[in-house]
Amino acid sequence: MRCGLIGHEGILSVFDHPVSPKSRLAPLLQVLEHHVAGFARNADCRAITISFPGIVTRDGKVLSTPRGKFEDAPDIDLAAWANERFGLRLIMENDARMALLGECAAGAAQNCTDVVIVMLGTGVGTAVMIHGALLRGAHVQAGCLGGHIPARFDGRLCICGAIGCVEAEASTWALDAIARELHADGEGNLPLPSQLDFATVFRRSAAGDSFMTKVRDHCLNVWSAGIVGLIHAYDPSVVVLGGGVMASADQIIPAVSSYIERHAFTWWGKPELRAAKLGPDAALIGAWPLLQQCL
Amino acid sequence: MRCGLIGHEGILSVFDHPVSPKSRLAPLLQVLEHHVAGFARNADCRAITISFPGIVTRDGKVLSTPRGKFEDAPDIDLAAWANERFGLRLIMENDARMALLGECAAGAAQNCTDVVIVMLGTGVGTAVMIHGALLRGAHVQAGCLGGHIPARFDGRLCICGAIGCVEAEASTWALDAIARELHADGEGNLPLPSQLDFATVFRRSAAGDSFMTKVRDHCLNVWSAGIVGLIHAYDPSVVVLGGGVMASADQIIPAVSSYIERHAFTWWGKPELRAAKLGPDAALIGAWPLLQQCL
Repeated sequence: MRCGLIGHEGILSVFDHPVSPKSRLAPLLQVLEHHVAGFARNADCRAITISFPGIVTRDGKVLSTPRGKFEDAPDIDLAAWANERFGLRLIMENDARMALLGECAAGAAQNCTDVVIVMLGTGVGTAVMIHGALLRGAHVQAGCLGGHIPARFDGRLCICGAIGCVEAEASTWALDAIARELHADGEGNLPLPSQLDFATVFRRSAAGDSFMTKVRDHCLNVWSAGIVGLIHAYDPSVVVLGGGVMASADQIIPAVSSYIERHAFTWWGKPELRAAKLGPDAALIGAWPLLQQCL
Repeated sequence: MRCGLIGHEGILSVFDHPVSPKSRLAPLLQVLEHHVAGFARNADCRAITISFPGIVTRDGKVLSTPRGKFEDAPDIDLAAWANERFGLRLIMENDARMALLGECAAGAAQNCTDVVIVMLGTGVGTAVMIHGALLRGAHVQAGCLGGHIPARFDGRLCICGAIGCVEAEASTWALDAIARELHADGEGNLPLPSQLDFATVFRRSAAGDSFMTKVRDHCLNVWSAGIVGLIHAYDPSVVVLGGGVMASADQIIPAVSSYIERHAFTWWGKPELRAAKLGPDAALIGAWPLLQQCL
């Protein structure tokens, strides 16, 4: 969890706090209280924003959480918490949407109005901007579920309940199962690490490991097909790729760009694929345009 | 081609003219001139609208056409044609978008503001309404390419240039290839008609033909996965299914509805699947709300 104080000049102060995959939200709020109180003493604070990995309303209702993470969040009245503890208004948004706002304000998508962001991390998070406005939809989940369009209609069951989602066919949480499946298809007796990650896949592939190259190419193909699907769905001019897996951007960006050039159906030219620039600060920086929209 | 005169009371007059798969637009315009002149003599006409099977601007520029159909359209100045021949303004829209406007005005999606329409015909056409407005996007193609999100990232090449699109894995134009592929997988020596259509598939399947049931179930699964992808992409409350293939709605609606119930990831409940009500009149009726928006 990254927490920061944002002003006209950008990020004024920051702290990080570790979050485990099974974290609950209530204990984290106590940590937040401590640090936000520290900020609030030293600044003329206008509002608190939270970038949350799930489906949320702007006024602080958590409608859906990632499986196993912050599962207590839907039962917490976060607006009341912000008001009672600090006398401040709370403004929340989905984490990929906040990262998109940040990349548009000061990162890879400056001066762009029609953008899809794809965050390759534990899962695959997405957000969409059309004509300069975040796409949110009737139940606040439009644009956020780009990792859950199908890559293989007869593929594996995704944690979302759908079948063969991009996230189920190529993401960190599914990587062990993907590698086991590709391994079973051939290649003799290659030992697999028990918890495979993409850093290992890309490093070993670059060092000439043919099985890891097979895993890498499978995932690059799934991401590419999914991104072409998002281009067809949302008609962007720019696609921004971010998230922890982008530590291997040097191998990802050329492969996906080439796939887009070959396979995207766009009468006007091809959308440009760009690596995210702001890393874990994107959501913090996205707080600024979000506040300008909401305050 | 269906052409009609629309007034406050709905469709006042209609004629149909056959269009072949390889038709050019210029000869059709002469047919249109004849009939529009007939209408215009008897009515106080305000504008001409054309519902076109491709990507178009509202003021009459054809940006992209279906392969082989109306290939001369991008070179024709349709706004000038309407003005010179009739002194009328031209307003154009994609055919699935016009059908969606029609179904919202007087069909299966009355009083709905967040709707995806999926037209199962020769290909798979789609259109999207969010918060009561058609989704159009930066280059006018958002929402129209729902038949071109992937169903199988390692599937067959689609006529759009992408791989494994819903339309390439389950549509009338791809049906022969799909059946040959499923046939090669097993089932002995079943003879196939040279140009298979969905009416035959559904009829023979209902009569107990196990191979046709295999083809049918393959296509129902692809459509269902694609529709769940569209639900995840656009967050609708209602999905309308139309197009010629819906002559077998009695077999399609229950199968796809059940798939949505089991697999759509929607925190708020499940979107309702409805059969289109207006058939080939949907686009004509859609002209009325389109005119209200544009005049």
